[in-house]
Amino acid sequence: MGLLDLENRALITDFYQLTMSASYFQHNHNPAAAFEMFIRRLPENRGYLVFAGLEQTLEYLENFRFLPEEIAHLKANPVFKHIPKSFFDFLLELKFTGEVWALDEGEVFFAGEPIVAVRAPLIQAQLVETYLLCMINFPTLVATKAARVVEAGRGRPVIDFGTRRAHGPEASVLAARAAYLGGCAGTSNVYAASRLGIPAVGTMAHSYVMAFKSEKEAFENYLADFPENAVLLIDTYDTIHAAHLVAEMKGEIRGVRLDSGDLLQLSKSARRILDQAGKKSTRIVASGDLNEYRIDELMRKKAPIDMFGVGTELVTSKDAPALGGIYKLVELETPAGSKYTLKLSSQKATYPGMKQIWRKTGDKKFYAEDVIGCAQEKMPGRPLLRKVMEKGKRIGKPPALKELQEKAQDELERIPPRVRSLTSPGHYPVKYSEKLRRLRQKLVREIKHEQGLL
Amino acid sequence: MGLLDLENRALITDFYQLTMSASYFQHNHNPAAAFEMFIRRLPENRGYLVFAGLEQTLEYLENFRFLPEEIAHLKANPVFKHIPKSFFDFLLELKFTGEVWALDEGEVFFAGEPIVAVRAPLIQAQLVETYLLCMINFPTLVATKAARVVEAGRGRPVIDFGTRRAHGPEASVLAARAAYLGGCAGTSNVYAASRLGIPAVGTMAHSYVMAFKSEKEAFENYLADFPENAVLLIDTYDTIHAAHLVAEMKGEIRGVRLDSGDLLQLSKSARRILDQAGKKSTRIVASGDLNEYRIDELMRKKAPIDMFGVGTELVTSKDAPALGGIYKLVELETPAGSKYTLKLSSQKATYPGMKQIWRKTGDKKFYAEDVIGCAQEKMPGRPLLRKVMEKGKRIGKPPALKELQEKAQDELERIPPRVRSLTSPGHYPVKYSEKLRRLRQKLVREIKHEQGLL
Repeated sequence: MGLLDLENRALITDFYQLTMSASYFQHNHNPAAAFEMFIRRLPENRGYLVFAGLEQTLEYLENFRFLPEEIAHLKANPVFKHIPKSFFDFLLELKFTGEVWALDEGEVFFAGEPIVAVRAPLIQAQLVETYLLCMINFPTLVATKAARVVEAGRGRPVIDFGTRRAHGPEASVLAARAAYLGGCAGTSNVYAASRLGIPAVGTMAHSYVMAFKSEKEAFENYLADFPENAVLLIDTYDTIHAAHLVAEMKGEIRGVRLDSGDLLQLSKSARRILDQAGKKSTRIVASGDLNEYRIDELMRKKAPIDMFGVGTELVTSKDAPALGGIYKLVELETPAGSKYTLKLSSQKATYPGMKQIWRKTGDKKFYAEDVIGCAQEKMPGRPLLRKVMEKGKRIGKPPALKELQEKAQDELERIPPRVRSLTSPGHYPVKYSEKLRRLRQKLVREIKHEQGLL
Repeated sequence: MGLLDLENRALITDFYQLTMSASYFQHNHNPAAAFEMFIRRLPENRGYLVFAGLEQTLEYLENFRFLPEEIAHLKANPVFKHIPKSFFDFLLELKFTGEVWALDEGEVFFAGEPIVAVRAPLIQAQLVETYLLCMINFPTLVATKAARVVEAGRGRPVIDFGTRRAHGPEASVLAARAAYLGGCAGTSNVYAASRLGIPAVGTMAHSYVMAFKSEKEAFENYLADFPENAVLLIDTYDTIHAAHLVAEMKGEIRGVRLDSGDLLQLSKSARRILDQAGKKSTRIVASGDLNEYRIDELMRKKAPIDMFGVGTELVTSKDAPALGGIYKLVELETPAGSKYTLKLSSQKATYPGMKQIWRKTGDKKFYAEDVIGCAQEKMPGRPLLRKVMEKGKRIGKPPALKELQEKAQDELERIPPRVRSLTSPGHYPVKYSEKLRRLRQKLVREIKHEQGLL
């Protein structure tokens, strides 16, 4: 498939990762390093995030390598003209041999918390940054959006209908996976459904209705072919008229779909028309620019809708379409032992050293507080970061997607309701341990001194 | 790469495309059909869109096929239990044999205009809908965003720095291509750069500065390795302090990068410090949550910035992260000849039949008006839709990406300035031909009559 075969992915990185690596190599500076990924601020209206994308990140790390033709092309770039051949030979042999700590997919997290940590030789850890961020940022956005949309639906199934509006075909597959992980009940994406065991869900399109002589003929044909599963789209010409057509049809009909107009009024009218014809079991599916806010409103107004199809808003996380996940150097081995590192940039400061998060439960089932401390500390609460990769090999088998969905559901139910609010959510308390705060203070002084800033 | 190998892409479609196809097949209803893709409304603050994504769409169509294991999996889905084996045998043999008309990539277009038209047997045209929409919607968003950001930069080069925030790795590659097509001067994405011949651009990361004992050592090391190309990142600890460090370094330095803080004030200070040290040729690169609005403001306030790196906002088209491109059945062969089709849904009505767009130039170089008419009409102006695929094979060779960038630049310069405005742009006149309007009126009456709505 030309440009998009993407069979080998090491080159999906930022150019500076390669120039910096060349420079590290030249200066014989490739010590063990630790980097952590975290989110500085939660997106608007988000009180929490649902972690996703780890599985594909680990796959990437396990398969990380450069192909000879890729290296040949790089070497020819005049930017590298002072870099000796030995660096490119080194790249050709390079594999990812490091250690990865991460949250479980489906775990809930908050701003400032380390969600993935990589411990590897500096050059390896640097080269994988871009892909790792990309592969966590997007699925996490969608899993979070799905959790919100599902919460708004109050138990009614929500289906991912977003493939056509995703940021390319691969994004549609990643989104289908993340949406299911975050609580959706199915996807329209056939590839994702068949590869991941997600229920494939579909109704019919306007073109189907238009392709037959009449709406009635289209409905009858579809029902004949899918007697148990026909969900008939009733807004191609006139919704109320089509609802009457369905009401007059013989036998049980699985459902009807509304895709435009005033969904509250139309669902009420359709329900009444179907009920009057004795079609109480016929479900009403609604779609068309839905999101958590509109679904919440429909539910509050008691719209008789049984299932929601959500597309654009879900797969692009439209009201928060980017997650600012960042990956920062926190530790570096030196001949004198570990050196902790941090950034002082205005508004963009970081905390030093590898960390752990401990999550404490309050007197009810709800989570009460997280504490971020140095990795080697012992603290009360459940530690959230687990070692998932060692010497470049994943530890254990990847869990089934269904298990991750259940994990996410369990976790979501333990977030305090005010933090789960769809708008202006409350702040969940995340603290830093005494030891970590002291380490930071000490280091800030040292760095200011070393860099000549005092 | 497991889930993301995506070697065969026919399954990246909505499930209903397959159920509808099964039903068409069952009813022996697979006439020649025509579908058109268009955008109903321009996203907010957009006065125009830049067409992109055609190349990858045509690649998909040329390679469209189902694999035996994919079909076996589908057939096992109980939804298809009344569908005979012959349908699945039919799918196994299926290729795309149709005809495609489209705008050139880089062409500018407006709401309501058909941008891709597919003429093929109904089932084929239906099955490719989802992928086609997905593959045009996203690149078009990014090419458009790029055009806006580049316009705001008033001639200063803009580089795509967005890979880590794209909606997955493939989206980062699609975005790099579309951004270049829309006017960017380079990308940080090494894969896209090496596959597409886009200049690869990079500076250094904060981690590079932090990985050495001091900022000064880091700067000196990088400069030694990349003497002609070193762009030194100066905001890791203290920007002004680092600018002085750079000013005191020996020799010519290609550039410095600012990535946080008040870019206007910091760029002015850095410029002054560098100039006073005789480093007038050292360029200032700015990055950090930039978009067309912020760049426009910086330029209006005369920030001495020579190059912009734009990431998140560019690759997600953050203020308009989804494009509502739709694909509607407009024509169907019947024994009695062509049947035109349209939708009457409230707010979602369509125009019937295959169409053409004619673009007229005014007395200056600017475009004055587009007219959408029936495909077979003859009208003054330049027709925009070209036949790009016949019998499932692309016509001619794909143009070089650089040519598409030049095409886009030429077209953008001919859009009236008020339509190109970054906020509240003026409306570009798009009209329907007399013949097309009459055809629609006639058809609306006929459909209302046929469907029993009159």
